[in-house]
Amino acid sequence: MKYLFVLLLAGVTAGAQIKKEQLNLMPWPQSVVVNDGNFSLTKNFKVNITGNPNSRIFGGVTRFLRRLDDRTGIFFEQGFVTKLNEVPNAELQINCAKVGKIGLYEDESYHLDIKSNKITINASSDLGALHGLETLLQILQNNSNSFYFPVSQISDFPRFTWRGLMIDASRHFQPIDVIKRNLDGLAAMKMNVFHWHLVDDQGWRIEMKKHPKLIELASDGLYYTQEEIKNIVKYADERGILIVPEIDVPGHGSAILTAYPEIGSKVITLTGGTSEKNIKGTAIATYGIERNAGIFTPTLDPSNPKTYQILSEIFDEVCPLFPGAYFHIGGDENEGKDWDANPKIQEFKKKHNLKTNHELQTYFTMQLAPMLKKHGKQLMGWEEILTKDLSKEAIVHSWRGPNEGVVAGQSLVDAVKKGYKTVLSNGFYIDLMYPVTSHYLNDPMPKGVNLSTEEKARILGGEATMWTELVTPLTIDSRLWPRTAAIAERLWSAEDVTDVDSMRRRLETVSFRLEELGLTHIRNKAVILRNISNNQNVEVLDEFTNVCEPLKGYTRNKNGTEYQMYSPLTLFADACTPDAKDALRFDEAVNQYLASKTPENKAKLTAFFNKWISLNKGLIELSTNAPLVQPILPLSKRLSDVSQAFLSVLDNKSSLKATELNKLVEECNTKDHADVELAVYSSLKKLI
Amino acid sequence: MKYLFVLLLAGVTAGAQIKKEQLNLMPWPQSVVVNDGNFSLTKNFKVNITGNPNSRIFGGVTRFLRRLDDRTGIFFEQGFVTKLNEVPNAELQINCAKVGKIGLYEDESYHLDIKSNKITINASSDLGALHGLETLLQILQNNSNSFYFPVSQISDFPRFTWRGLMIDASRHFQPIDVIKRNLDGLAAMKMNVFHWHLVDDQGWRIEMKKHPKLIELASDGLYYTQEEIKNIVKYADERGILIVPEIDVPGHGSAILTAYPEIGSKVITLTGGTSEKNIKGTAIATYGIERNAGIFTPTLDPSNPKTYQILSEIFDEVCPLFPGAYFHIGGDENEGKDWDANPKIQEFKKKHNLKTNHELQTYFTMQLAPMLKKHGKQLMGWEEILTKDLSKEAIVHSWRGPNEGVVAGQSLVDAVKKGYKTVLSNGFYIDLMYPVTSHYLNDPMPKGVNLSTEEKARILGGEATMWTELVTPLTIDSRLWPRTAAIAERLWSAEDVTDVDSMRRRLETVSFRLEELGLTHIRNKAVILRNISNNQNVEVLDEFTNVCEPLKGYTRNKNGTEYQMYSPLTLFADACTPDAKDALRFDEAVNQYLASKTPENKAKLTAFFNKWISLNKGLIELSTNAPLVQPILPLSKRLSDVSQAFLSVLDNKSSLKATELNKLVEECNTKDHADVELAVYSSLKKLI
Repeated sequence: MKYLFVLLLAGVTAGAQIKKEQLNLMPWPQSVVVNDGNFSLTKNFKVNITGNPNSRIFGGVTRFLRRLDDRTGIFFEQGFVTKLNEVPNAELQINCAKVGKIGLYEDESYHLDIKSNKITINASSDLGALHGLETLLQILQNNSNSFYFPVSQISDFPRFTWRGLMIDASRHFQPIDVIKRNLDGLAAMKMNVFHWHLVDDQGWRIEMKKHPKLIELASDGLYYTQEEIKNIVKYADERGILIVPEIDVPGHGSAILTAYPEIGSKVITLTGGTSEKNIKGTAIATYGIERNAGIFTPTLDPSNPKTYQILSEIFDEVCPLFPGAYFHIGGDENEGKDWDANPKIQEFKKKHNLKTNHELQTYFTMQLAPMLKKHGKQLMGWEEILTKDLSKEAIVHSWRGPNEGVVAGQSLVDAVKKGYKTVLSNGFYIDLMYPVTSHYLNDPMPKGVNLSTEEKARILGGEATMWTELVTPLTIDSRLWPRTAAIAERLWSAEDVTDVDSMRRRLETVSFRLEELGLTHIRNKAVILRNISNNQNVEVLDEFTNVCEPLKGYTRNKNGTEYQMYSPLTLFADACTPDAKDALRFDEAVNQYLASKTPENKAKLTAFFNKWISLNKGLIELSTNAPLVQPILPLSKRLSDVSQAFLSVLDNKSSLKATELNKLVEECNTKDHADVELAVYSSLKKLI
Repeated sequence: MKYLFVLLLAGVTAGAQIKKEQLNLMPWPQSVVVNDGNFSLTKNFKVNITGNPNSRIFGGVTRFLRRLDDRTGIFFEQGFVTKLNEVPNAELQINCAKVGKIGLYEDESYHLDIKSNKITINASSDLGALHGLETLLQILQNNSNSFYFPVSQISDFPRFTWRGLMIDASRHFQPIDVIKRNLDGLAAMKMNVFHWHLVDDQGWRIEMKKHPKLIELASDGLYYTQEEIKNIVKYADERGILIVPEIDVPGHGSAILTAYPEIGSKVITLTGGTSEKNIKGTAIATYGIERNAGIFTPTLDPSNPKTYQILSEIFDEVCPLFPGAYFHIGGDENEGKDWDANPKIQEFKKKHNLKTNHELQTYFTMQLAPMLKKHGKQLMGWEEILTKDLSKEAIVHSWRGPNEGVVAGQSLVDAVKKGYKTVLSNGFYIDLMYPVTSHYLNDPMPKGVNLSTEEKARILGGEATMWTELVTPLTIDSRLWPRTAAIAERLWSAEDVTDVDSMRRRLETVSFRLEELGLTHIRNKAVILRNISNNQNVEVLDEFTNVCEPLKGYTRNKNGTEYQMYSPLTLFADACTPDAKDALRFDEAVNQYLASKTPENKAKLTAFFNKWISLNKGLIELSTNAPLVQPILPLSKRLSDVSQAFLSVLDNKSSLKATELNKLVEECNTKDHADVELAVYSSLKKLI
């Protein structure tokens, strides 16, 4: 009997044991084994480091301790880790064989072994150990009154060596604290490249000591000092992240040309004189910081030696700020209009036997390569830099797809076949407000294309891009997170980790945990809603964000002129995000109902309809003291109207004709209000 | 008939006219007149500046435009203001006669005149104009679909010239973005002094080029670079704020002495030799960065010339970073224990005829005065610097009160009577978690003391102090705001502006509006609660914060050793604030019920009791998956138990004896759980 009791108890414990599938790990590791038993966290929990790492790991472990303690409120005794082998008998032992090199191709693997009384992280480099600590933080479990780690063994390494995020700091300047907290987010998601888009039409963002005009005239006073840049580089290094700076040339040149109009391509023809004698001349055009979004003509003059002189001096000042081996020179979206209209440039093309503007741009690009090489940098550029004369050392950044009228990622295949290394961003444009699945299932390794092993190896990885035409420091985190975490998984985890349901489930917890790094993707939504509601109760507004999504692609800011860079981005659309929660849940309910019209399944639908009818009433009430609620009302009314109709139909009380019902549904398919769309439209349509 | 209709309409408009008392202005201006009519905001709204200001006003107006546009979503056409008289026919005309001088005694007055088609701000200096813009932002009104300013005239100027906030960046380092957003908060509240407590036992926070050891050994890597400090000084200047830096000496010296133990006062006696011959000697003590809170012995040696040499060199490096005319040298809480135990220092006292340690400290202080004077700075120090030999130029910072065993603000009276200028901080210690009223009604001008006009004039104003033993970047804003806004009103508005109900009502809106400056006092509460709840629904937790307040005074961190500076401050107490909302409402309900036991008044009480019973159930449920909820349960149980009892008593169904009920109430008077207290205890007690 006693024996049986013990067995039963063991059974209970084992029953409470977490299953591998329940872990909220992201990116999912290459190998996970969960066994019975737990490691209990107590205030005596300490960390010890051995091997040959540098001080990077001390900071990493100290941050790990603070995060774990802040989550659990355990009051760890250990405050700081400052040297090797400080606490030889510590419960967590970390061994790193060597100092990790920040850059590509470093060994980032780690082995995490959790036993019931001891945890070890073994890694070749400290970069792997930092990844192991993030996994350990993710595997934390709790019951009602304590925290623990499940006994388990994890072996892990990345699939791709380039797991990047680009942030555009030109269109809307993003202060240092925004960059820092997102670097922390990247590190938590085991991403290792931060591509800093520092120059575009809307502003130059790097302090320049030898060319101060760039800041004085082309930054609105919003820029990073060189010291700040160095500090960010150090901050990134401490988190195992490489920074790739970008100065976008020769197109997107409004800011540079605002400071240096003399190296612009635009020609102004002057006419004067008398009726008898015409005098014609040319003058230098003037430029201004661009306030709209779009593709603009200001372009550097590739025929002007001064262009190269200034760029060379700029690189001489900027390159030393970034110890990494790569420098991005942009090169995208140069339509060459000002080149075509400039006789001097046309002459130059002829003289150098450059047949197209594309060849002219390659000529330009190739002048830049040695300027960068001098500083030990390889040139990287958007896919437009790819032409036959481009040096094989350049990295081609593949970005275009159907939006730009070409096959998605075609340039990636072209590049690797021609011998170039490449990084994929097409499909990872998170500023476009597409659902997380579209990014999650976007694999840098093209399907159905025959690539040799060598060619495949040239696909370095991928990079999420956060363009900031419509993104401010208040909203950037909610545009980046949590979707970037799903991209991180695509780039780190095995190719066959593609279970969307699992990803969604894990993403919810991951998103919540990212808050501890200071990311504001959850908290700032309430700030926006409080402003819209004029400090009334935000509950109905918040509920309505669960069925609305910001307009996708480039539809929110038609022609790039509805919003200037100083326009308000504190609106309802700015509080909404892709993957509206109730839209997903409603779609599930619709599918269940269509599969089986049980009373339970019907009840799920009617609950949604009743909620939406009531939401509309709530919003109308709210709007009586909140002008910013007004633009939403046409939407909530349509959703309420269609809900009313469906309720009648479901109860067989409706005298509505199918065409009338269809009309009500179609009225929900609108993009004319508040810059959002009703994300339940397609599910409603299924019901007809 | 037509005439009558028009009259009626006019009547409606007039009826909607806002009354002066309904305006959410804070600090309340010296003179407010509201007339009929409104100025309607449209996208054509523009600003024009005339007079003789410098560029400070351009930045101020541009920020004003963005804030107003972000609130209203109107899409103003005007993006930036960059020069004088840019839009002569603009609807808002600002005229500043001169450039404001950052410092004391500047003319900060302004006249704001809102007519139905034109707004003017007239100010002597641009500092006054900036204040006028803040008032204009506060006076914004709306109906259901538009925003407007009521026709009104406001004339305004500050009562005190020193309206300050101190932030302790030593105990918990507060990054640049924390400082910046709080400078914005100060400017919005028309405060003009930021006192930056940069050095204490727990860390040295200023980059030092000539004494790098201070950073290398005594900062944990957490410090402001000199460039960052200069940028903050500029940022403050742009908002009309003077920065007063503090290096706290000779006590609170752990950090300095960690780097320079040779100038410490502690003596270590060495004994050695043989049994026949004793050898005695002394050695330099070693010091470490302090991790606890409290008053510690490490103190600079005032008898050592090297002390003055190092301090002089430090001032030579630090003073030029701060253009303001004042430098705070601390001087507080030096108990002199190490001085008493050091024979060399005792000898020094005798030699210089210094009878007490207090006199010795004055000797020390007076050595510092010329070091600062050399850089054009006046010395300021906490009230302990006040002795008979102190130079009359020094400013005495009055801070002690009953907590320290002295009469509140006595030193202020002493100082002005002795001819010193003084600033009051006693009663403004916002870190102590006292209710807003206690600070609001704390007037720097002492009541019942006979002071001459000259003596009164020496009372410069007051300063809120945010010590950070228990305050991190996550929580600092909720400890500062909104209570600091009430202190701002005390320091700016007329002496007789003391209506607590009015202050509370206005404070609610002011607090909400402060969010637009990036302040996190509201949004970060949800972050903490999400962590405590383990990402479950935070509603019950949030409700429970409405009856709980953090322990007051120094009771949360007994003896300063329960929390180290690296301990978690992500707990329930960190989500709670003084002035718990439901505690105030409940107290009102109790008072009403006691005044008149109507069914309505009884119903108000029972609603609270039922809510609290249900809260307890909700918290128990939440706790099954949230260990951090456990410490709260004993409190919610007590509140639930007493609520049950009162419900029975109110229904005359109780067989409880008075003593038993009293016991239940007294059980709510506990400080033993979760570092909070039940803020409804005193109201419950009234009910017995």
